[in-house]
Amino acid sequence: MTELLSNYVSGRWQAGTGAGTVLLDPVLGDELVRVDATGLDLPAAFGFARQTGGAALRALGYRERAALLGEIVKVLQANRDAYYEIATANSGTVKNDSAVDIDGAIFTLGQYAKWGAALGDARALRDGDAARLGKEPVFMSQHLQVPTPGVALFINAFNFPSWGLWEKAAPALLSGVPVIVKPGTSTAWLTQRMVRDVVEAGVLPAGALSVICGSSQGLLDALEGFDVLSFTGSAETGAQIRSHDAVTRRSVRVNIEADSLNSAILMPDAAPGSDAFNLLVREVVREMTVKSGQKCTAIRRVMVPEAMFDAAAEAIGAKLAGITVGNPRNESVRMGSLVSRAQLNSVREGLNELKAQAEVLHDGSQQALVDADPAVAACIGPVLLGVRDADVALRVHDLEVFGPVATLMPYRDVDHAVALAHRGQGSLVSSLYGADDAALGRAAVALAASHGRVHVVTPGVAKEQTGHGNVMPMSLHGGPGRAGGGAELGGLRALDFYHRRSAVQASPAVLAALGIQ
Amino acid sequence: MTELLSNYVSGRWQAGTGAGTVLLDPVLGDELVRVDATGLDLPAAFGFARQTGGAALRALGYRERAALLGEIVKVLQANRDAYYEIATANSGTVKNDSAVDIDGAIFTLGQYAKWGAALGDARALRDGDAARLGKEPVFMSQHLQVPTPGVALFINAFNFPSWGLWEKAAPALLSGVPVIVKPGTSTAWLTQRMVRDVVEAGVLPAGALSVICGSSQGLLDALEGFDVLSFTGSAETGAQIRSHDAVTRRSVRVNIEADSLNSAILMPDAAPGSDAFNLLVREVVREMTVKSGQKCTAIRRVMVPEAMFDAAAEAIGAKLAGITVGNPRNESVRMGSLVSRAQLNSVREGLNELKAQAEVLHDGSQQALVDADPAVAACIGPVLLGVRDADVALRVHDLEVFGPVATLMPYRDVDHAVALAHRGQGSLVSSLYGADDAALGRAAVALAASHGRVHVVTPGVAKEQTGHGNVMPMSLHGGPGRAGGGAELGGLRALDFYHRRSAVQASPAVLAALGIQ
Repeated sequence: MTELLSNYVSGRWQAGTGAGTVLLDPVLGDELVRVDATGLDLPAAFGFARQTGGAALRALGYRERAALLGEIVKVLQANRDAYYEIATANSGTVKNDSAVDIDGAIFTLGQYAKWGAALGDARALRDGDAARLGKEPVFMSQHLQVPTPGVALFINAFNFPSWGLWEKAAPALLSGVPVIVKPGTSTAWLTQRMVRDVVEAGVLPAGALSVICGSSQGLLDALEGFDVLSFTGSAETGAQIRSHDAVTRRSVRVNIEADSLNSAILMPDAAPGSDAFNLLVREVVREMTVKSGQKCTAIRRVMVPEAMFDAAAEAIGAKLAGITVGNPRNESVRMGSLVSRAQLNSVREGLNELKAQAEVLHDGSQQALVDADPAVAACIGPVLLGVRDADVALRVHDLEVFGPVATLMPYRDVDHAVALAHRGQGSLVSSLYGADDAALGRAAVALAASHGRVHVVTPGVAKEQTGHGNVMPMSLHGGPGRAGGGAELGGLRALDFYHRRSAVQASPAVLAALGIQ
Repeated sequence: MTELLSNYVSGRWQAGTGAGTVLLDPVLGDELVRVDATGLDLPAAFGFARQTGGAALRALGYRERAALLGEIVKVLQANRDAYYEIATANSGTVKNDSAVDIDGAIFTLGQYAKWGAALGDARALRDGDAARLGKEPVFMSQHLQVPTPGVALFINAFNFPSWGLWEKAAPALLSGVPVIVKPGTSTAWLTQRMVRDVVEAGVLPAGALSVICGSSQGLLDALEGFDVLSFTGSAETGAQIRSHDAVTRRSVRVNIEADSLNSAILMPDAAPGSDAFNLLVREVVREMTVKSGQKCTAIRRVMVPEAMFDAAAEAIGAKLAGITVGNPRNESVRMGSLVSRAQLNSVREGLNELKAQAEVLHDGSQQALVDADPAVAACIGPVLLGVRDADVALRVHDLEVFGPVATLMPYRDVDHAVALAHRGQGSLVSSLYGADDAALGRAAVALAASHGRVHVVTPGVAKEQTGHGNVMPMSLHGGPGRAGGGAELGGLRALDFYHRRSAVQASPAVLAALGIQ
């Protein structure tokens, strides 16, 4: 039998008492490790984190907690090679794609360490200036942000076992809130290993960081009113979480990041062959293939002026034809596998559903694999679909196929393109490609109401632009509506989720004596 | 039959097709008017508000929308006498108590008119400065707040038919978001009348303000992903709202303000007879009796040092003995009625439940009524309960009796008092009374984690302090946990709920061309 990974709760390593779930190599089909959370005393685990971990973290100031994030960075960097090996084995990703997850996490932690240090030795944050409650400044209202006296539970997705943990844990720990992470089961190994390294390095106070691998059963029951819950995954599971008593009756604050039908829009001025046109083509191909399209921010819909539809289809298709697919250990392979055969089946089913309303412009779904057995490996080449009338093709605005799949569609004018983007009913990100600053600015504001992020690529920033799908810690990550309504990152804005805002109404003398910094 | 009040939706007055619910005078028992929402086309009504009202409001800038609020203020002021008459008849409140609802609304609208004017002619708000996404300022992230392209549905409580509408509508309309209000049925008349006056004055664009009186059936079904919902009422109804598909599946943003076991804490330095002691006594009596204790922010728990328990009981009881109760039309009456006989029964039941764990320190429940028939009027005098061991008396921390009822309890030290306040599992407000600025400052920060507002009364602000239960628009209104986890007001912070935050990543040239101001 393979190794059974332990859970770390209540300040000690605890193995589940069940047989466990086997984690597989999605390319070779090998059994790797097992995870199991059966028999854990979850109320005790949450209580330990809440009391012991929370008290220890809140006894520190922001600068000291930022220093802890810096220590975590060192631990992760020291063990980086092991993480790449786990990613190759368990996620089936090529090195460049593993980097998005692993180095993306380290970068994000480092940013919060830097931003947190600038907050100084305060133990709570003043939120704005004191406001007068009458004509004279005798009785004032000072808003504070104080760490919530609870735990932060993360129920995470399989596609980012590293970044998914740390992009949430960085602001939580910086805020003084202990973290309990339940990684997506199929790739839980990397999360568990990172937590293990950080725990063994002894950089965090007891109770500050816990990991539970396997079933999420009972986790929500253990939540109390001052806890917060951050979920990344399907809209279906998100709805179940929102319906739980912890949320509906105990007002547990919840952040959800769910499905998203992100779009890329080629502006009318970007004729075929222009810099902006080429930038769109490059970005679409990159977004379709990085992590085999298993990114919540990946481009799913590509909108181009009607007259450019054929040229865009041809240019994107030509580049997709050069994408080699297969075993990520082979250096000639550009794109590895999906995370599992289950996901492969889900992608194939989704493709078939979309094909009922779309034509196939480039079909990599049957292409030969490099160094991989198609009967075993969860690999599939990229597929570009197209619809000629995006107003009637309902499914392409509604069904997120979580793989290397995107749909090209024509629009009449920019208003129409924005309306089509809006048909996603709220998405994480839309990107614009063009060279007309004024037109881009107007379109960006129009998209902002239904997108958590708008990414504008102009020829002048071809090298510096950070990528449609890359989540930068400086910018908000989340989107309204079907994207879940969540808000992560965005620099120090992320700390809001882990703090409670309160207005202290008092004399200036009392406000000067709050003793928070 | 009494008059059937119409609903205002889809830009016209529409009567319900059912028999309607009768609204009563809670003192005299007279039938006043009827309300009914049967047969309304709610999807059409919400669609009209969303498209017609939303587009018209968003075509204006903040300054212009602020001017609309100023026009609403004028309309309400012109009809103020009629509102007081309705409040007396339908809410059974004395003039001073009606003022909290009516003049409190006008004051809040006026504040947002002033704050909104200062936002200028922008159509969306820049949120912070642009942040560099690389080493050079070549590609930047600028966060925006843009009005959500949906409606704001308010499902409101019976205790504030005026303020409850306008404290929410002011930031919503200022944000460019159309409002649909469903007032608490038993006092819906005042809300409906105010909307009628504003509609007839023609100050708002069509679709900007709608009112639906009666059942809330079907309202949530009409919500879409970019709408927002603000509910004030019971925790039970709040849980039902949070469980609805609109919230769980369509990510409708929801704000809930529910039960709250607010507290007042006498600090150890405030000996009987001291200014701070007297200030607590005065505030507790005021909070127990204003609107007959039917305020979500009213003091429910009074915590005093053990040695001061008897003195506090005596002083509060002596003042309560002077409270006259009965018909608000009689000028000698200090406290009018509860909103209905149903609420009277609920208060009596709650009192009996608390009495199982508490002694009665002052009993006004059987006192003679002035000018009112105890068999008809929903009147009850104030009752002060007491528990000698607040750690074992569980119900007093858990059951909100929505009437002129509070419970006195002793504490050992300030940490114990804070722990007892925290036992409310998240409350709207706690107030502190003392003269030691440093001790007050520390206690205020400790309370801030579990309270949306902390109100500190020192002898030096005796005249200027705005009152434990008064909700000032400058300060956050809301509380974590059982208080619902909501956030209203807090100056311009209230606009966040009605905006969508989005990060625009672009070149400085594109960011300069956003065209939002």
